[in-house]
Parts: sequence; structure tokens; C-alpha cells
Amino acid sequence: MATLLHIDSSVFPAGASSSRTVTEAFRRTWEERHPDGTVIHRDLAAQPVPHISAPAHTAAFADPATHTPEQAAAFAERVKLVEELEAADAVLVGAPMYNLAIPSTLKAWLDNVIVMGRTVGDVQPLKGTPVTVVASRGGAYGPGSPREGYEYVQNYLSAIFKDFFGADLTFIVPELTMAPADPKMAELVPLFEASRERALDEAATRAKSLVQRLAA
Amino acid sequence: MATLLHIDSSVFPAGASSSRTVTEAFRRTWEERHPDGTVIHRDLAAQPVPHISAPAHTAAFADPATHTPEQAAAFAERVKLVEELEAADAVLVGAPMYNLAIPSTLKAWLDNVIVMGRTVGDVQPLKGTPVTVVASRGGAYGPGSPREGYEYVQNYLSAIFKDFFGADLTFIVPELTMAPADPKMAELVPLFEASRERALDEAATRAKSLVQRLAA
Repeated sequence: MATLLHIDSSVFPAGASSSRTVTEAFRRTWEERHPDGTVIHRDLAAQPVPHISAPAHTAAFADPATHTPEQAAAFAERVKLVEELEAADAVLVGAPMYNLAIPSTLKAWLDNVIVMGRTVGDVQPLKGTPVTVVASRGGAYGPGSPREGYEYVQNYLSAIFKDFFGADLTFIVPELTMAPADPKMAELVPLFEASRERALDEAATRAKSLVQRLAA
Repeated sequence: MATLLHIDSSVFPAGASSSRTVTEAFRRTWEERHPDGTVIHRDLAAQPVPHISAPAHTAAFADPATHTPEQAAAFAERVKLVEELEAADAVLVGAPMYNLAIPSTLKAWLDNVIVMGRTVGDVQPLKGTPVTVVASRGGAYGPGSPREGYEYVQNYLSAIFKDFFGADLTFIVPELTMAPADPKMAELVPLFEASRERALDEAATRAKSLVQRLAA
């Protein structure tokens, strides 16, 4: 029986959020195919984790026996998030692009769970863990597009999840999500719709294949 | 008489923070040379601004006359930050690299002050405003270094401050700041020290030249 850690960071609820619509599709397939599995949902918009603080940061580099009460308390919060991540057989992340980069809530979560010597560095407890990131974005930033150089979500999360954590990383990218709301993007609506359909298909396919692999 | 908006985001206090040590040096020179100027200090570690929320986001795209009370309250908070930024003759930003990117508190501030149609887009009230970013980092990520491809602070903030805001952007980059604390980096300590001295010099020089230009 496998555990899925499902993280969302869009400020919008499922119907109004492209990333959540796709993470929900992934999760629905996962639950249908693996009803005795576990899903842990962490909604960073509804319940943000603290920004990293000096005691939370320094505690990670100090012998726990030397922690001040403040460091011990701050580090205990980080360890909870780390344990949740370590316990996951698969991770699903909704990472909408806000101002070219990930939401501040998702960065705060990453700053908490990246712990040198525990989750990254010489040890890599997430090595090979399947991580699926739904990197939705209002415009088009793919290879060859005029805004390719402004893509700071996939590039950054590749560095973190693939290179730092050693995870088995897959992106699902619903693009042009602003098209239906922006009259200037009217002619891009068909491309947006195709991108959304493709993302929903990819989410279901990825969830099915992970259930087959992990729940066997 | 000129106004400097001084933003810090390091979790550490001045003595223990490379970025704050350099922003302080800049500010000290500014104050010495321009005693009747104004400095507004926004410390995002001590007093983080809220993560962007759905009402704060949607309010920026809606006619204020149609705002719900929740949107109006959330947007009023953003407008305060925007007005502070618009009123600045110069901006100084401490932006340490945490896990390859800017702190979550700085991203939260950016998500608040980037308002399409007000601070970015067809209008650019910050066009030409001198912005000095102290982009301190534990290692070396400069052009030609092995970790060049992992640099998500300068690249990202260039896109935002230069391309989005149209600001007159200068970086000051104290690097290898982890060298004194990391035995594996011991031989890099002289390079770290040289980088710190250069950064302090650049901060004083930049502050002097800005005072000359702006307080004339």
C-alpha cells in the first residue's frame, strides 16, 4: 500500500485553478486505482508553513543536543515536514507560475524540507521517488517560445527535485491558462484547451502507471 | 531630498548576514552623504508581508468599485507596499540565495508589488529607478563556474527588476560566504574575503554616486 503526498500551492480553489484541476485528476485516478492507499494532502495556500527563520536554519547545522529551546521548537516543525516527505512513495506538486516563479508558499515549504545531510547532500532519501509537478502557467514558456528565457518554475524545480533530491521527476504543463480571461489572448483559447486536455490525460496516465509500479 | 527604500530578507541579523552587512554599508554611506534624505527600512524577515491570496490577486484585475470587502482589505495592503515602492528614489534589496533562489519572504513581497497595469505592463512607474540588489550566496555561481546553471537569484531578479519594472539595476555579489563556516571550503576563505571587501567597496561607491545623482 502506497502513500501519495499531494501538495497544492495555487491560491485558487480547484475549479478556478489550473494546477489544482490537474492535481485533482491525478489524485482521483490514484484513489480509484489504489483505494487502500493513503493520500496526504498539504494545501500550502490554506495552511502555509512558516518562512524559514534563523533558529530553524541554524538548528539544521547544529548537534540537536546543543539546540536552544527556540531552535528545538523551530526544527521540530521542519522535521514533521521532512518526515511527511520521506514517508511518501510518490509526490504530487501543484506549482503554478506566479510572476515567472513558484509561489512564495511553495518556496517556504522547500526551504523547510531541504535539510543538508538529511534530505540532500551525501544522503538522498528521495532518490528515485516519483515526483510529478504540475507546472501550470498563464502564457507559453516552452522551448522555442519567445518567453522561454523567463521560465523559472520548471528550471528551478528540476534543479531542486532532480539534482538536489535525486527524485524521478515528471512535469505536466498546462499552459496559456490566462487565455480564456484575457481578450488579447482570444485566439490562443484552442491551444489552451488542447494543453488542458493533454495535461489531464497525462495526469491520469502517470497516476495509473505509478499505482501499477508502487502498489504491486 | 531623496528617499531610499531599503529591503532586507536575510533571516540573520547584520553581523551574521553577508547581505545585511553590505546593505548596511550602502545605507551608512547614503545617510552620511545625504543626512536630510529619508530611509525606509523594510525587514521582511522580522515582519513578513502576507503571501499573495486569492482576494489580493483578483482585486488587482477588478474595478475597485466591484471589490468585495475581503478584496478591498487585501488590496489595500498591496497598495501600501506599492506606494512605498513608487515613492522611492532608490531601492536597495538584500537578496541572499537560499536553496538557489530568493527567500520566500522576498518572493511574497514581489508578488504583492507586481501589479499589472500599475507597476508593470503598459505603465512602468519604476522605469529608470536605481535598484541595487545585494545578491549574497554561500558558494560561487558566477559565469564560468561549475554552478553557473544553478543561479536563480540574479537571473530571476534581472527579469523582474529590469525587464518587468524597467529599473536601472545593479548587482553587488558577495560570494563564498559559507567558506569561513565550512571546513571543506577552507581554501576558499581568501576568495570569500576578497569578495566581501569588493562588495563593501561597491556598496559605498554606488551609494555615493546615487546620492550625487538624486540629491542634487
